[in-house]
Order: sequence, then structure tokens, then C-alpha cells
Amino acid sequence: MVGLVGGGQLARMCGEAASALGIEVVVLAAHREDAAADVAHEVLVGAPTDPAALGALADRVDAVTFDHELVDLEAVTALERAGHVVAPSAAALRFAADKAHQRRNLAAAGLPVPHHVVLEGDLEADLEALDRFSEALGHVPVAKAARGGYDGRGVVVADDAAEVRAACRRWRASGVAVVLEERVAFRAELAALLAQGRDGDVVHWRTVRTTQVDGMCREIRVPGGVDDATDAAATALARQVATACGVVGVLAVELFDRGGDLVVNELATRPHNSGHWTIEGAATSQFENHLRAVLGLPLGGTEPTAPAIATVNVVGGTEPGDLAAALHVRGAHVHRYGKAPRPGRKLGHVTVLGDDEADVAERAWAAAAALGTPTPALSSSAVRS
Amino acid sequence: MVGLVGGGQLARMCGEAASALGIEVVVLAAHREDAAADVAHEVLVGAPTDPAALGALADRVDAVTFDHELVDLEAVTALERAGHVVAPSAAALRFAADKAHQRRNLAAAGLPVPHHVVLEGDLEADLEALDRFSEALGHVPVAKAARGGYDGRGVVVADDAAEVRAACRRWRASGVAVVLEERVAFRAELAALLAQGRDGDVVHWRTVRTTQVDGMCREIRVPGGVDDATDAAATALARQVATACGVVGVLAVELFDRGGDLVVNELATRPHNSGHWTIEGAATSQFENHLRAVLGLPLGGTEPTAPAIATVNVVGGTEPGDLAAALHVRGAHVHRYGKAPRPGRKLGHVTVLGDDEADVAERAWAAAAALGTPTPALSSSAVRS
Repeated sequence: MVGLVGGGQLARMCGEAASALGIEVVVLAAHREDAAADVAHEVLVGAPTDPAALGALADRVDAVTFDHELVDLEAVTALERAGHVVAPSAAALRFAADKAHQRRNLAAAGLPVPHHVVLEGDLEADLEALDRFSEALGHVPVAKAARGGYDGRGVVVADDAAEVRAACRRWRASGVAVVLEERVAFRAELAALLAQGRDGDVVHWRTVRTTQVDGMCREIRVPGGVDDATDAAATALARQVATACGVVGVLAVELFDRGGDLVVNELATRPHNSGHWTIEGAATSQFENHLRAVLGLPLGGTEPTAPAIATVNVVGGTEPGDLAAALHVRGAHVHRYGKAPRPGRKLGHVTVLGDDEADVAERAWAAAAALGTPTPALSSSAVRS
Repeated sequence: MVGLVGGGQLARMCGEAASALGIEVVVLAAHREDAAADVAHEVLVGAPTDPAALGALADRVDAVTFDHELVDLEAVTALERAGHVVAPSAAALRFAADKAHQRRNLAAAGLPVPHHVVLEGDLEADLEALDRFSEALGHVPVAKAARGGYDGRGVVVADDAAEVRAACRRWRASGVAVVLEERVAFRAELAALLAQGRDGDVVHWRTVRTTQVDGMCREIRVPGGVDDATDAAATALARQVATACGVVGVLAVELFDRGGDLVVNELATRPHNSGHWTIEGAATSQFENHLRAVLGLPLGGTEPTAPAIATVNVVGGTEPGDLAAALHVRGAHVHRYGKAPRPGRKLGHVTVLGDDEADVAERAWAAAAALGTPTPALSSSAVRS
């Protein structure tokens, strides 16, 4: 039995994989109607930061894992001290939960990260550091709250220095450290995905190309123009990150490809949006291998099941979705997360497999559009802005 | 929202497919801990033959469908009369629930069924009919209870006339009609699988070869030596059966291949064991297309995802299963149904995809064995006995 902290779509898809394997999941969800509730053996309602709720979850299961990293690392550490199996560990989770910790530690391990500084002093010193860093870069840096962000929230990318300055003031005032980073001019955004077992065995999936809009992943393509050399380099880098984190379970590493070299953008020590294509598109999905890793079971093969794969996120817009119209799209594998529609909210995804990448992407977008997804203006080669 | 009558493994796998599509399922289960409970939005505990329980289920959902056919057809008819969407209909279900009805009606439609007689008179006349039929055949017929059988239960295949006679007495004494049939000498047992939408649209999967032991399906192979002509003939026959039944949803037709001609053995108007390979082995699984059909949604493609596919059932034996050992088998897609182990009970299945049929079958058997399945003596070319 596996305990999942968080009841979102990642927990739901873990639960679907767990059901197939005959593994029961207990979910600690913020609300009884959260996405994962219907695939859980049991739902505990509570905050992911509540030590008592975490303890109640851990007491019921063989291993605890996570749907998200918005947790209290001290409470997770306390579970470990009490002898519970927690995977990823609090130490690994911290790389995903705390961007300042991640940047520092990856840089210390010699891994490529953007130029950055961490603001965590008094406000005056921090704002001076912002000015100095901006001057050194020659542009307004990206500002990221070290904790609490997701899907572009907690990140400010702006040409206007005042906007970044205001965000820094706001976050620092609430006691959150800030990471300032160079704006990386990239040729493509990639994501490397691997799973590490309790025994240190690692399997990795094919590196994919992702397209973000306003900080939210919208499209994933396999192979997405990622050549074998880049795939190998991205995988090698992700393995080094896995070692630095000491992760057990899935690790997703989002990368900037600057046209020859790779830089770590973000990472997640859990199944990740960039790996949803593996449900139909790989011999074993990220969700199944995450569970297998967490439970100390052998990991499954990761080879792609088709030459070309596209996944497009279903995002809430102004139109209601039409499931029939989406299923009418040839080869559309529709996933809906059971979440109430809201503009800008991730509600599901569609994966299409085939031989031609432009064709599968077009069909995945068509099905996502039928499900109500507004079509964004994609400019895949643009500098992140 | 879909209502499922019955909470067994078919309902569980429907529930897994439903979760991916964002469709909620309500299960009417005999026990709260039945296989499908963990993937249900709601579980109603009640008998599938209880009109009140069926009514409570139907009131909660958009359409009612079935995990099994051990239902009260009058109660199902009453749901239809009350205006509920029921798919398959009571009329279609009757072909699966009542072997006498099925044999009569398929024969009347000109479809190939074994020579048979139905016993439903007084005992003396029935036993005389048994003697006459045996004499006409020149062998002891197979006896089947017209209702209530599954997995070889309710079927007696014996060389000893007294054994068949005793079964007929027993079933007739409890008011159940008996179908007596010739023992068909077959070259292979095949299963054709299709789904029919509410609008009459039909999709069909590749016809497979099945191997039964003691009336229970143990192995499914794709293509299993089924050549294109036989596949086409089996599919055409299944389409005729679908028309005769008026089925909505999945129809599985088990066939005897006598080496040139096909005869209908059994049928099921729901997802079927012979179609479990479609979860990983086809573009759309039988479970997803069943749900899509029942809800009036467009059906998905059915093309195989690999040149060779084998599924082996996990059956309870004397050894406990070892999930880690099963997952150690390369390419093993393990499905466990969350059922308590018991000798002879279907507990799960394993599917392996690949290029070579002997290889995938060997691996599927290895993983099933690791999960505790006793290895039966298979003699795939034997006369059914």
C-alpha cells in the first residue's frame, strides 16, 4: 500500500497505474473531491503540511510518496526519523521544493545552472543585490520565489525592473527567499525523465521537447527534434542531478537547450507533466515506474511505443469541453482529471501516437481544442519571456 | 456517469479506463471490498438481481452497464421501461445470460452453432431426449446449464453418460433449462471481439487464439496463428451475432475453428477475458470502447500495437505470488485484481508485447508463474474434454 501526499492529477494517474498492479493507494488530499479521490482505496482529508495528517497517512501504508512538493520538509523529515519509508526523501524533495537550495547544490556539484543569486538577507541588502546582479547581467533578471511556486506562479519574467523589484519586496516581506537568474536565450526547452529505484537502478525515457506558455507546459513532442546526441547529453545530466538529489522515484529535469549546451531550468522529484506521454507512449509509464521505485520493485522498460508522439494539455478556457468531439479525433488518448473547469487550469491532456510528428501534434491540439483549450500563440523558438 | 452492475475485475478495469477519461463510475457490488471498489466514485452494496438496488444505481447515472450477466432480466427490462439507458439492453443480455435463448436465436438467424437440444420439459421427457440426442450424435453430449454458469462452472463435459445425466437431473430439479450439445472437434479456439456504438457503428479487434483448461481461459495469443482469412470470417460472424443480439458495447464471441469453418461456442455482451490484451495491445482497449459505446461516444481505433501479443491469466494456486519477481520479467504488464487468493480463482493477468509470439508467450507465462499461477498441461490441439 502506497500513501500519496496530495490528491491532484498526478496522484490520480498514479492511482490508475496502482489499480492495474493491484496496489492500494491512500491519498492525503486537501479536499474529499480532489482529482485522485475516485482511484484511492482511502482518502484522508488534511493539509500536506500537517504533521499529524502525514503521520496518519504514513501509519497506514508501506511507503509514502508525493503528488507535489508543497510540503513541510521538517514534517517529512520527522516521518523518516519515525522509521517510515518516504520516497523521495526529504533531502531529495528539497531540491524541488526549494529553488535556492537546488541552485546552490547543483552548482556546487558542477552542474550547469543559469547565473543566479539568492536573496535572503534584509530587504535593503537584497534590493542592492538585485541592482548589482541586473547590472552585471545587462538585463532585468528573472525572479523566482524559492518556495511555493508552480505552473509559472511564483516566477516573474519582465522587462520592467520595477515589476521584478516589487515581486522581490513581496516575497521577501513574507519571508520567502528569492532566486534571481539570468534570462536564458534558448533554442528549445527540453525535459529529461528518469526513475531511480531504491537499489540505485536507473531507467530513463527519451528526452522530449516541451513548449511553455506563460510558464505552463502546453505541448510535449517526442522526439521533438531532439537528436540522439542531445538526448544522451540530457539523460547524462539528469542522471547527475539524480545523484546530487539522491532521488528515489521519478525525476523530471526541465532543461534549456542553448544550441549545443544544456542548462537546468526546473526539476521535480515526482511524475511530471512532461512525462504524461509515457502512459501510452512508453513500455512503462512514469506513474507505474514511480510506484515501482517507491515500493522497491524492479523498474520497467521505457522504450517509446511509436516513432512520433505528441501530448497537449487541456486547459480551461471560456468554452465548455465536448468529449465526443475530442474522441472523434483519430487516435486521441483523452485524459481528464475530474477537476472543475476554470480558465487557465490544467484539466487534462491528450496524447496521440503515430509516424509523423506534425500530424500527431495537430491531432492532439485538435482534441485539446475540442475539450475547450484556448489555442495559444506558440513561438517555440522565442526567448523565454 | 456510468453505473456498473457487478464489482469484479471487469468493472475494475472499466473503472481504470473511466478514470483516465474523467468519467465517474458507480458500482453495484455484492460486497464493499469487491475488486472494483477502489476505482469507483461510489459503491452501492446490493445484489445484481435486486430491482431496488438496480433502481438506486440507475437513478444515479447516465447509463447502466454490466460486469457480468448473472442478472435478473426482468429487473433490467423494468429499468428500461422506466426510461433508464441500459447498455447492453435486456434483450441483448439475454443472449449471454440464457444459453438456450442464445442457441435458438443464433440458429434461427442462420448462424453456425453446435448441434444442440434444449431440455426444459418434465424430467422423464428430458432424460429421454438426452438418450435420443446421445444416440443421434454417437457420443455423450456436453451439458450446459442455460443460466448461471461461468468459467467452466455450469458445464459438464464427460465421457461417462451417467455424469451428464446426473447434471441434467440436478439442473432441471432446480428449474434451470439445460442445453445439450455435440462435442465439437476443433483445431483451435478463437475469440472475436467487437464494440458496437449506440449509433450502430462497429469497431472490431483482431481475432485471437485462446487456450482453455477445465473451461477457464488461461492464455490468449495475437495473432495466434489466426490468418487474415480466418480473422475476416470470425469478424464477419461476430458482426452477425452483434446484429442478432442488438448489442451496445463490447461483444466477445468465442468460436471453435474446425479447420475451415467456425462455430459459435459462447458469447459475452461485455468486456471479456479474451480481450484483456487490448489494454496495452490495441490502440483502444475493450474497456474504454465499452464505456464509449455505452455513453454514446465515438469509438476508438483497435489496431494492434505490436506484431505479437500474449496474455496469460494469473490463477490462484498453492504458492503465494511474488510481484517483484513478476515485474522482473522483461516487458511484463502485470494486472492484479485485488482479489483474495484462492486455488483456481482468476486473480489477474499478464500481457507481454513483442515481435515473436513464442517469446512473448514464454515471458507472460513466466510472470504469471511468479505470481503463483500453477502451470497447467496445455494441449492446444486436443478435442475439448
